[in-house]
Amino acid sequence: EIVEQVIDFLAAKCLAGRRVLLTAGPTFEAIDPVRGITNLSSGRMGYAIARAARQAGAEVTLVSGPVALAAPLGVERIMVRSALDMHGVVMARAAASDIFIGVAAVADYRVANAAEHKLKKDHGGVPAIELVENPDILAEVAAMPGAPFCVGFAAESRNLEEYAQAKRQKKKIPLIAGNLIQDGFGGDDNRLVLFDDHGSHPLAPASKDVLARQLIEHIARLTGNL
Amino acid sequence: EIVEQVIDFLAAKCLAGRRVLLTAGPTFEAIDPVRGITNLSSGRMGYAIARAARQAGAEVTLVSGPVALAAPLGVERIMVRSALDMHGVVMARAAASDIFIGVAAVADYRVANAAEHKLKKDHGGVPAIELVENPDILAEVAAMPGAPFCVGFAAESRNLEEYAQAKRQKKKIPLIAGNLIQDGFGGDDNRLVLFDDHGSHPLAPASKDVLARQLIEHIARLTGNL
Repeated sequence: EIVEQVIDFLAAKCLAGRRVLLTAGPTFEAIDPVRGITNLSSGRMGYAIARAARQAGAEVTLVSGPVALAAPLGVERIMVRSALDMHGVVMARAAASDIFIGVAAVADYRVANAAEHKLKKDHGGVPAIELVENPDILAEVAAMPGAPFCVGFAAESRNLEEYAQAKRQKKKIPLIAGNLIQDGFGGDDNRLVLFDDHGSHPLAPASKDVLARQLIEHIARLTGNL
Repeated sequence: EIVEQVIDFLAAKCLAGRRVLLTAGPTFEAIDPVRGITNLSSGRMGYAIARAARQAGAEVTLVSGPVALAAPLGVERIMVRSALDMHGVVMARAAASDIFIGVAAVADYRVANAAEHKLKKDHGGVPAIELVENPDILAEVAAMPGAPFCVGFAAESRNLEEYAQAKRQKKKIPLIAGNLIQDGFGGDDNRLVLFDDHGSHPLAPASKDVLARQLIEHIARLTGNL
């Protein structure tokens, strides 16, 4: 904690006074009271970015799916479980934010026929899971009148540049950070490529903390804060 | 750690020299490289039982699904992800164990058509998830010739006694610890009812550590070690 306070003190305050809203971690889409669909996001990249934004002087609100990480110092954290919960919290706060960073691995689909009680294996064979599409939080925030500066994440298992640029154009957002799943999921290190109107900017492989600070500096430059 | 060593020293060695194999945590059944079906098990009850068995003098092997918990002191831990992985590790070690305790919330089903690459929302509409039944690890261990003394867990959202006793009889195991999901999932405390040939034994609500020690004592009594 002392180390964090010292870093906090020494960091360039390139986002001083800006309000940053971000999402991190996985979402959990219930099948029944105990089972659900989720993903392998550890939340570490999002938490590192929340910390870096705070150290850069921003007021940070972190909307987090279920992870086992402590809230970064000085960051307001709101825990949610499902994509719909996350959507509700983000939409209520997006208009008051200057920058929105969607790092969470939000489930594209939820279970339409979630069961109130635990499904029993003996009753009626293999359960059928019906999926319905979840709202696209990032695209909705980007489409708001007076939208905050929006940053997305693309975690792909292949074709990173193609998929990340397609996502950036489809959602109409100025900046996407892309990474290959095999480089970063669950670990402390990662490899990021930033995609913006000027093209692609690969960052050297580094710890998630270092990459988070570089991403925050890039955002500060693009928003005219640096 | 010092506290744990002192408890270890003071604890009654009612399982001295016995080999205990146990499973804990959720399993994760892949849909694609990042998404999967899992459950809300935190692993805390299973880890507490592993610790209590070790403190009672047993040689403990813990087969754990993905959780963010440290391995208990002096316990051999093997991390696995899917139910099939867990099945393989357990079946390779069950014959050499005196006691098997299945605490893990093992997925009843896995995804038959898991995708090698991340599924894209734009390609082909809502994905269809086909489920196939996983092996029943506890029932298979209990059916081995010279099977270890088998203990199961039943986490239910209702009808605890009925479901737990039915599970005990169907899998032919001497002891099941039952709890209601709303009492224990994710938290530090729990409420357990033990079901054996003599009937049901409700334990007073307590921390998972205290309940784990009571369960270990009950197992020691039933196996003639106390």
